[in-house]
Amino acid sequence: VSFLDNRRYAPALERTSAGAVIVHPDMLVRVPAGTVPIVTAEPYAGWARVAALFHPAPPVRPGVHPSAVIAEGARVDPSAEVGPFALVEAGAEVGACCRIGPFAAVGPGVVLGRECRIGAHASLSHAVLGARVYVYPGARVGQEGFSFAPTGAGFLTVPHLGRVVLEDDVEVGANTTIDRGSTGDTVVGAGSRLDNLVQIGHNVRLGRCCVVVAQVGIAGSAVLEDFAQVGGQAAIAGHLRVGKAARIGAQAGVMSDVPPGTALVGSPAQPRLEFFRQVAALKRIARRRAE
Amino acid sequence: VSFLDNRRYAPALERTSAGAVIVHPDMLVRVPAGTVPIVTAEPYAGWARVAALFHPAPPVRPGVHPSAVIAEGARVDPSAEVGPFALVEAGAEVGACCRIGPFAAVGPGVVLGRECRIGAHASLSHAVLGARVYVYPGARVGQEGFSFAPTGAGFLTVPHLGRVVLEDDVEVGANTTIDRGSTGDTVVGAGSRLDNLVQIGHNVRLGRCCVVVAQVGIAGSAVLEDFAQVGGQAAIAGHLRVGKAARIGAQAGVMSDVPPGTALVGSPAQPRLEFFRQVAALKRIARRRAE
Amino acid sequence: VSFLDNRRYAPALERTSAGAVIVHPDMLVRVPAGTVPIVTAEPYAGWARVAALFHPAPPVRPGVHPSAVIAEGARVDPSAEVGPFALVEAGAEVGACCRIGPFAAVGPGVVLGRECRIGAHASLSHAVLGARVYVYPGARVGQEGFSFAPTGAGFLTVPHLGRVVLEDDVEVGANTTIDRGSTGDTVVGAGSRLDNLVQIGHNVRLGRCCVVVAQVGIAGSAVLEDFAQVGGQAAIAGHLRVGKAARIGAQAGVMSDVPPGTALVGSPAQPRLEFFRQVAALKRIARRRAE
Repeated sequence: VSFLDNRRYAPALERTSAGAVIVHPDMLVRVPAGTVPIVTAEPYAGWARVAALFHPAPPVRPGVHPSAVIAEGARVDPSAEVGPFALVEAGAEVGACCRIGPFAAVGPGVVLGRECRIGAHASLSHAVLGARVYVYPGARVGQEGFSFAPTGAGFLTVPHLGRVVLEDDVEVGANTTIDRGSTGDTVVGAGSRLDNLVQIGHNVRLGRCCVVVAQVGIAGSAVLEDFAQVGGQAAIAGHLRVGKAARIGAQAGVMSDVPPGTALVGSPAQPRLEFFRQVAALKRIARRRAE
Repeated sequence: VSFLDNRRYAPALERTSAGAVIVHPDMLVRVPAGTVPIVTAEPYAGWARVAALFHPAPPVRPGVHPSAVIAEGARVDPSAEVGPFALVEAGAEVGACCRIGPFAAVGPGVVLGRECRIGAHASLSHAVLGARVYVYPGARVGQEGFSFAPTGAGFLTVPHLGRVVLEDDVEVGANTTIDRGSTGDTVVGAGSRLDNLVQIGHNVRLGRCCVVVAQVGIAGSAVLEDFAQVGGQAAIAGHLRVGKAARIGAQAGVMSDVPPGTALVGSPAQPRLEFFRQVAALKRIARRRAE
Repeated sequence: VSFLDNRRYAPALERTSAGAVIVHPDMLVRVPAGTVPIVTAEPYAGWARVAALFHPAPPVRPGVHPSAVIAEGARVDPSAEVGPFALVEAGAEVGACCRIGPFAAVGPGVVLGRECRIGAHASLSHAVLGARVYVYPGARVGQEGFSFAPTGAGFLTVPHLGRVVLEDDVEVGANTTIDRGSTGDTVVGAGSRLDNLVQIGHNVRLGRCCVVVAQVGIAGSAVLEDFAQVGGQAAIAGHLRVGKAARIGAQAGVMSDVPPGTALVGSPAQPRLEFFRQVAALKRIARRRAE
């Protein structure tokens, strides 16, 4: 079973020898004889469902590995799996059917809803997680943010009093960092997905189903409304508001508020059409002078 | 108790119901009746001091967790706290009142001054730390840098012989990486602060009280003089000198030496005023052509 | 013994008091009396060889630290060194003379060729490593990539079925992340070197002897042919092909295929000469308007 989603690969469809292929109706005529077409308006979602049927995620195996440390006063649901060298500190709560990976640190008082998965070497502190939250290996959630006041005698650290709240179905990528709030909380809304090596500053608030691609940096107290999407390596300055379903391009540098639904690219970030007009104009000028 | 530092939030001041608020003298007239103003020229530093009074950092609890490993020949001050699954290798020294977090690795021969805090999963090797150095979770300090010579038979690795020196009061953010020196040492000067996911190449030397925001990359052998500030995601090429109190903007790309006190933005980096003039000029040209 | 490779430092050569210095023939006349010149066309490679003679890498000490966990069904060659708190899971194979660092996680079924070194806190899953592969501290190899299909009821995760293949002599920098393939494998070709904090998306394929500098992001299914070089913080969009020996500049943003041997800079990336002509043209225009 295969699938075709990116039309760039359409020529490969005509040469496929797969037994079945999941395709959009428009592509049906290009499926070769001998291959069974499975037609859907959403081939990628279709592939996700089929692949999950053939390759289900490994089941959670209840129990605590003998090398793990569960501190006194921690609560671990008996249906949860706690891996080798995992650590659950005092006052922490691990919900039903969670899987805590090897070397994961669930800090004092951290609360995990049901069916969470905490990857190898991830660390959580000052955090509250909803249900089905996936934290990938090496992610850092809940440490203090970058915050200090300059004084005559050097920098004075500003205490952090807030938490990190990861709502239901959030995913946090490998080696991503999310700082705890300084006064309020840092919040990632339900269903939002963060890729690897992302930086989320203190007090940032992401709405529902936001998508943040690898190596993005979101500075302190910025707000992203529901369905906002941020391309790889983009940066969002502090204290800004990015409107609902706005789309920020890869490597963009956002320095002011973004209205809902806007598509921005470039650094400083600008409307997509305007940016590419500028790129073209500059090319023309430089060529004319070079002639 | 609340505070107002960023004037963007001044309208909120007039609606506050806080018992007391820390404000700049200019804002005094906007504090509503029923709220006690605490007036200072530095509201943010004032907030830091008040918050620290109400929320003191948890005290260090002397002792070594039974799951920790202290190698033979390591010296751990009896006033230090060594957490679960922490590792202190042979020849290492942990000073008075240090706190070594869970899963932290203090490598062979590493020396920590007094009152250092090493976060969960951080690793230190070939490093010497002064007093009150904070290393956040997952930071990597002292591994070999990116260094090899091309030869006919592939790349030949260049050995690293230097160390990392973190002077007093340095902070190193979560998942930040600092490579050891190849010949001399990599040095971060007293009071400097590095945010999360920063890359510091081998032989880099930072002066005193430098500020390096998240996801910055500083390539090998660059020098930053005292009080230099580097915005998020900026890059500094190798072997450059960034002068005293220079300010490099977010996402800037620095390709040549920077005189003291200069403010640069853009990639390639340019003086701030010049950069924004260029942005404006390009906008005008592109619009004219689009009409 | 010292060396001179970067000619920026030539004046220092004339003032050296080193006993011997490795130099290019062109620099011979500038070596002062009292210093023995060692002449080679490749001074940096020469230095690498000399330094390795004086400072050989510490030998591997066969054996398993008592705090390590080797799961039943894992195979560890008796000549390998397994450090404190290391974990080798079921079905994994650790080859001859490997060194597994403290807190390293070798996941179920992962295979390591001979003489690999896995740094502290690194995690490997769904991965096959050749000989002499070095994985630096905190690197994440083999977790699932960033992949989901939007549906009416939120995002649907797409299962990952592939692996990560790191061929002989590959190096993976500290806190770098390499996602496993979704259908095929993610592959890093023999001799390629990745610096710290790099992101390699699922299904990416790097050829032989590629060089990827710190904080680069390579999006899913991109292909880099042999000897491609990517400067720090550059980004390569998904599904692109970067040709043999192409050179991508620091902070570049590559949005289309790159022909072999091309040198690109800028975001969006352009031929080097064209980019700097544009920078110069824009400067002139902005200055003229400012007058």
